[in-house]
Amino acid sequence: MNSAFAMFVLDNARPGAIHFRMAGHLTHKSENITWSPGKVTHAEREQRMGHSGCVVWFTGLSGSGKSTLATELERELFKRGKNAYVLDGDNVRHGLCSDLGFSPDDRKENIRRIGEVSKLFADAGMICITAFISPYRSDRELARNIVPEGRFIEVYLDTPLTVCEKRDPKGLYVKARTGKIKDFTGISAPYEAPFHPELELNTEQCSVSECVATILKRIGLA
Amino acid sequence: MNSAFAMFVLDNARPGAIHFRMAGHLTHKSENITWSPGKVTHAEREQRMGHSGCVVWFTGLSGSGKSTLATELERELFKRGKNAYVLDGDNVRHGLCSDLGFSPDDRKENIRRIGEVSKLFADAGMICITAFISPYRSDRELARNIVPEGRFIEVYLDTPLTVCEKRDPKGLYVKARTGKIKDFTGISAPYEAPFHPELELNTEQCSVSECVATILKRIGLA
Repeated sequence: MNSAFAMFVLDNARPGAIHFRMAGHLTHKSENITWSPGKVTHAEREQRMGHSGCVVWFTGLSGSGKSTLATELERELFKRGKNAYVLDGDNVRHGLCSDLGFSPDDRKENIRRIGEVSKLFADAGMICITAFISPYRSDRELARNIVPEGRFIEVYLDTPLTVCEKRDPKGLYVKARTGKIKDFTGISAPYEAPFHPELELNTEQCSVSECVATILKRIGLA
Repeated sequence: MNSAFAMFVLDNARPGAIHFRMAGHLTHKSENITWSPGKVTHAEREQRMGHSGCVVWFTGLSGSGKSTLATELERELFKRGKNAYVLDGDNVRHGLCSDLGFSPDDRKENIRRIGEVSKLFADAGMICITAFISPYRSDRELARNIVPEGRFIEVYLDTPLTVCEKRDPKGLYVKARTGKIKDFTGISAPYEAPFHPELELNTEQCSVSECVATILKRIGLA
């Protein structure tokens, strides 16, 4: 065969605007040219998955319960037949962001990349759950602004520092207090609480299951 | 309520190794403590989705047909009830990698990040399809090596330069030939063909639908 290969360029910025280009030798047009209707649309994905793609963005101090709640939320969503995926330090800091440290600039870039990846997951129709301290308000706003309106659910874990420090699940507060870790959020680096998060939860006062139930209700999947 | 909040730390590096930590005031243990069985497992995701998460990595010159095939493959997989998502210049170069240019170092970092993101998608159980020139062999090997063995399907589009240049869907070859674009793969920057790709397709000789059928067969989803 020396047939043609059709080039179809879909303009993602304007869904429905499909630019068609043809190149090569058209010797077997009807046989070898396949119309490409473009990518799978959001509506098709939503219909298939039974929910919209979105980002559930946890923010709060170390030890406030982000990873615990993210993991449990993912599990509960899965049990309900939904497609969810957690982005956290385990799968991001060691991979995509392995080149970044904890300086303000690096934290900013870290959150920028996580925001962009969560956007891709939401675009793919998934419920993307992120579990990062994400201490700066402006960085979280950037992440919010790149996903369609209403698809970014900021969940602020308003757990008091004293409680987080008592929990200290990874022994990091002890190290921060003794100067072994620098730039530690809440101790030697700032945390900027959200002004208007979609949800605010105090994990000292509510159990894991209560918190998860509140989030499921908020995203309409209880 | 002033009940306890359980901290469960799942060690992702060692599935099955679940570290349990407790903090706070245990006033209503049975009522408020929820056992977190950890993240959704790969096996559970595979069973739900009906396929394994994997990466279908297209590589080839500009105009070789990567985006066209990626889009069409995504569509065909969706029609078969599978969960697939395309990463390409449209959704990556303008977002996650917007800070990168086309120097060798930037290309390397670009492909590193795309590799890491495709790994996350595969980890989430999706069939992640990437459509990037990815000219350097070592960069593609890095992307291959971070996903589990057998989950990386490198598809080399062995379309001759002359054919790609004739197609020139974005008018880039003309600009490269006249020096308006520097470091253009195939003209003024190198392309390193894979030694052992899982698939090698010549889009001059095979139609879109034939190529897609070959790929579907290779990944066991024809």
